[in-house]
Amino acid sequence: MKIGLLGFGVVGRGVYEITAARDDMQVVKVLCLEDIQLPDAEVVHDFQSILNDESIDTVVEAMGGLHPAYDFVRAALEAGKNIVTSNKALVATFYDDLLPLAESKGLAFRCTAAVGGGIGWLSELERVRRVETVSMVGGIMNGTCNYILDSMTRLGLDYGEALSQAQALGYAERNPSTDVDGIDTWHKLILSSNIAFGVSLERDGVPAAGISKISAADVANFAEHGYVCKLVSHGTQCDGVYSAFVQPTLYAQGALEAAVPTNFNLITLDGEVSGRQSFYGQGAGRYPTAYNVVQDCVSLLSGKGFYCPYGKKVTVDNSCTRRYYVRGASDAWIQSVAAENWNGAVVTGPVAVSEMHAWLKNNPDAFIAAIAE
Amino acid sequence: MKIGLLGFGVVGRGVYEITAARDDMQVVKVLCLEDIQLPDAEVVHDFQSILNDESIDTVVEAMGGLHPAYDFVRAALEAGKNIVTSNKALVATFYDDLLPLAESKGLAFRCTAAVGGGIGWLSELERVRRVETVSMVGGIMNGTCNYILDSMTRLGLDYGEALSQAQALGYAERNPSTDVDGIDTWHKLILSSNIAFGVSLERDGVPAAGISKISAADVANFAEHGYVCKLVSHGTQCDGVYSAFVQPTLYAQGALEAAVPTNFNLITLDGEVSGRQSFYGQGAGRYPTAYNVVQDCVSLLSGKGFYCPYGKKVTVDNSCTRRYYVRGASDAWIQSVAAENWNGAVVTGPVAVSEMHAWLKNNPDAFIAAIAE
Repeated sequence: MKIGLLGFGVVGRGVYEITAARDDMQVVKVLCLEDIQLPDAEVVHDFQSILNDESIDTVVEAMGGLHPAYDFVRAALEAGKNIVTSNKALVATFYDDLLPLAESKGLAFRCTAAVGGGIGWLSELERVRRVETVSMVGGIMNGTCNYILDSMTRLGLDYGEALSQAQALGYAERNPSTDVDGIDTWHKLILSSNIAFGVSLERDGVPAAGISKISAADVANFAEHGYVCKLVSHGTQCDGVYSAFVQPTLYAQGALEAAVPTNFNLITLDGEVSGRQSFYGQGAGRYPTAYNVVQDCVSLLSGKGFYCPYGKKVTVDNSCTRRYYVRGASDAWIQSVAAENWNGAVVTGPVAVSEMHAWLKNNPDAFIAAIAE
Repeated sequence: MKIGLLGFGVVGRGVYEITAARDDMQVVKVLCLEDIQLPDAEVVHDFQSILNDESIDTVVEAMGGLHPAYDFVRAALEAGKNIVTSNKALVATFYDDLLPLAESKGLAFRCTAAVGGGIGWLSELERVRRVETVSMVGGIMNGTCNYILDSMTRLGLDYGEALSQAQALGYAERNPSTDVDGIDTWHKLILSSNIAFGVSLERDGVPAAGISKISAADVANFAEHGYVCKLVSHGTQCDGVYSAFVQPTLYAQGALEAAVPTNFNLITLDGEVSGRQSFYGQGAGRYPTAYNVVQDCVSLLSGKGFYCPYGKKVTVDNSCTRRYYVRGASDAWIQSVAAENWNGAVVTGPVAVSEMHAWLKNNPDAFIAAIAE
């Protein structure tokens, strides 16, 4: 396998290092804007040099962002090159464009590192689908949020302190919105649901609530009631009805999710015959992420394409209900669904997930958290 | 694929049911001593009928026990048939006989359901080995013991009550020794280490301490000191030195292992580049176990044989140290290594694992538990 590697940042460099020791694949060109020299690959500044190189059969995209990543990936597919990427935003956003294109061209398109970093989650979904149907996917998919929430829970930090610490350690970006507003988890949920259920979720119907409004007082409130807060994704299929959402979720102390420390991920599926399975590991970082990029290259060599056939577009129905902790805003509707009072915060009775997220859109200063069933 | 199925108990019936819905494989004969009729397969009472059936390319062994399972599996390999089994005792015990035979014949031999039941643990080790080396394997591999210990921890039951409850629910055998004395976990550890490290561990050097001497007072003692007890396997390789043992182990409350409920398993590996990964799921039961038997059949169809090349025989060196909780026996040696007193029980300073297990052999009424690092 001759690889053209797009990007030489955190992940790209890891891919280069891991593949350097292998006989079955070789990074022959690296697209990188900086002037660097590499012992085993040519550094190029122009994507055309990779696109037009007929010896390159596989493009590994490790640049991140939507553009020009999308344009390069699309052009590479058009030129008959297989794609491996760790870019969840790219795949979730252009799913309906890139996947049918790869399928029609008979090319491989893999993105295992895009969800779960070092966890082989998407590959495991591919394996599960060989034998059974999956009714639920979801879990803790963002290490940054888990680090912040875990620091608040175990060390009693306030949100700002925990975020600063995560930024100092390189776990959070200077502008943390993609992580803390749940957008990264949202991309990962859409991708996981699409593959697990063999569909293409209508993305507009998938809401995401984030953690940026959580306070130390909320976390203390949860602890007093025996709960730990995590940012969690949840996707289900049942008799052709699809549900999907991202939201802070309260787990009983002692639950598996509650025990996930620092920046780790824990992703779960419910299989028809295998039952519940969870996968725990490093959700990000150079080597864990590069590891699954290289795993995808090995899978590609063994003839694997995408994880499932491209499936039909489906709408999302979030009429399922949850009880919610709501703090920071109230109105007649919240009062009408209130069931308990936790130190001034409302805990509702069962409320439709779609209704609560619609309310949150109009009350952006509120913090909400569902109570896990 | 034409399957000859040996045994029609819990697992065998599950395999029959799951494969019945598939086009790519068919159970054509079932070896079963009872007089039953099946819509899609011939029931035979004599193994020769399967052995001599040239249309059968794959034998699925779901009988359990060492004999005649071993004799049937060996004869099937000699006759050129692939093997899929969920029998951990069989594979661990006859590893040095069956694996080289399968390898020399170019036949597939798979046993994913033998460790972790519904968890694709051994398949995951196979995948991991494509890209990196593994330095540690282990974890909670026996659902019966986890059920007993979890009931003692969460419900405050005594050992006898918890065992009776596990027996009533079908989680424990009438004679529970294989589970509670750690023998089942020992087989699974040997198999996992052999595959993860690509060796064949000298089994005599792998000690197992069980849970049958644990008392409600021990569990209360652990809780008072912030710990939860689990039966755990542990295998490592480092610079050609191999360590492997099974023992009750104390985890801090809040640790992932401490949160594993009822009869679930949690199995962990440390990868050179992927870091720590853990796998959680149903470690036993008809459908989870049959699920991975069928997964093995699918893997076999895609050309997969065993998980790793058969490796060289290696001795085990358990000179690594742990701190131990010791209750129920004492002597000059225990006094010499004692560091703390927990309500009358000794907690030692760091002691070689091999030394502690040697001492336990001479003090079979004692209960020991290592403190997780």
